[in-house]
Amino acid sequence: MELLREMVLTDGKVYDNNVLKVDSFLNHQIDADLMLKMAETLRDYFKDKEVTKILTIEASGIAPAIMVANLFKVPMVFAKKSKPSTLKNNDIYEAQVHSYTKNITNTIVVSNKFINRDDKVLIIDDFLANGQATLGLMQIVEQAGASLVGVGILIEKSFQSGRHLLEERGINVCSLCRIASLENNKVTFNIADDER
Amino acid sequence: MELLREMVLTDGKVYDNNVLKVDSFLNHQIDADLMLKMAETLRDYFKDKEVTKILTIEASGIAPAIMVANLFKVPMVFAKKSKPSTLKNNDIYEAQVHSYTKNITNTIVVSNKFINRDDKVLIIDDFLANGQATLGLMQIVEQAGASLVGVGILIEKSFQSGRHLLEERGINVCSLCRIASLENNKVTFNIADDER
Repeated sequence: MELLREMVLTDGKVYDNNVLKVDSFLNHQIDADLMLKMAETLRDYFKDKEVTKILTIEASGIAPAIMVANLFKVPMVFAKKSKPSTLKNNDIYEAQVHSYTKNITNTIVVSNKFINRDDKVLIIDDFLANGQATLGLMQIVEQAGASLVGVGILIEKSFQSGRHLLEERGINVCSLCRIASLENNKVTFNIADDER
Repeated sequence: MELLREMVLTDGKVYDNNVLKVDSFLNHQIDADLMLKMAETLRDYFKDKEVTKILTIEASGIAPAIMVANLFKVPMVFAKKSKPSTLKNNDIYEAQVHSYTKNITNTIVVSNKFINRDDKVLIIDDFLANGQATLGLMQIVEQAGASLVGVGILIEKSFQSGRHLLEERGINVCSLCRIASLENNKVTFNIADDER
């Protein structure tokens, strides 16, 4: 997505040949107009999939997910990184998600009332890097017996293992911006065949 | 807001004469259509205030805040409950927020790049109870030297101290649903003069 790549180039900052900071428009301050355009692009890509539910994980997945949900006119569910006191152990789906950046493992939780075997779930997240959050959300979809129709991502770090892990499981992944490299603290894009 | 009150009555659950669980449509699963209508109502209320920025706090404030930001065509900023590793101490505004529910105090953080003295800030959050999160966000607006134009809330627990604390500071508060009591685990509304 050309507009997103322009924003990454003009407003993104790269550290340590690996970290892309996009907090001025994507995950701390959010450019609402850009977010709407990104949501429309993801909706267009998945529009024939009869999506019944959008699933993401708190916190920075929530903004793109609610915008996409609003376009599909379906509910959005966000997984929580800790179990709410009002949810009992047998009322939840849960999965372990390891963060390589923070070197911690979180248990993510979704109430089992909100995804069921009839659902066609579209997972939305801001970043795809090592894919651990997405794999955790996929486990939750599987526990619910629901179908996963695909994964929509704003920014993919294609040089990390996430996309490969999803593709080898046959998942339909749409990333709006694919980054081939952050070497020398410079952004190099991977403009793919499925460019949106 | 009639539609929201209906949802609270039909889908909300009350515990311990004090806790209102709305996780089926507001803060775990989110009814995207309801969220858009709530955002439109808040936009209509504050439409003459020349809002330049929407401010909220992760995680459950993000969905209403991005929807309101999209209607105003202004950026949204969400305060983080922990300091990102990419932000240095002299690059941030911060405030202490005590949660009576969880009995913990969090430091909330906003990068000082994203709010400045020219901003007219509208604070959006899902709940107003004791008002501690809102007061923390107000401290951040004050540190930035920005103007606060008002506070937009989805559900207010009017029997707790939040609204009083804001009103005695002269803040313009718009709550879409005001709850007078949860006694006997029953929802009683407070339908006020400023009903939207």
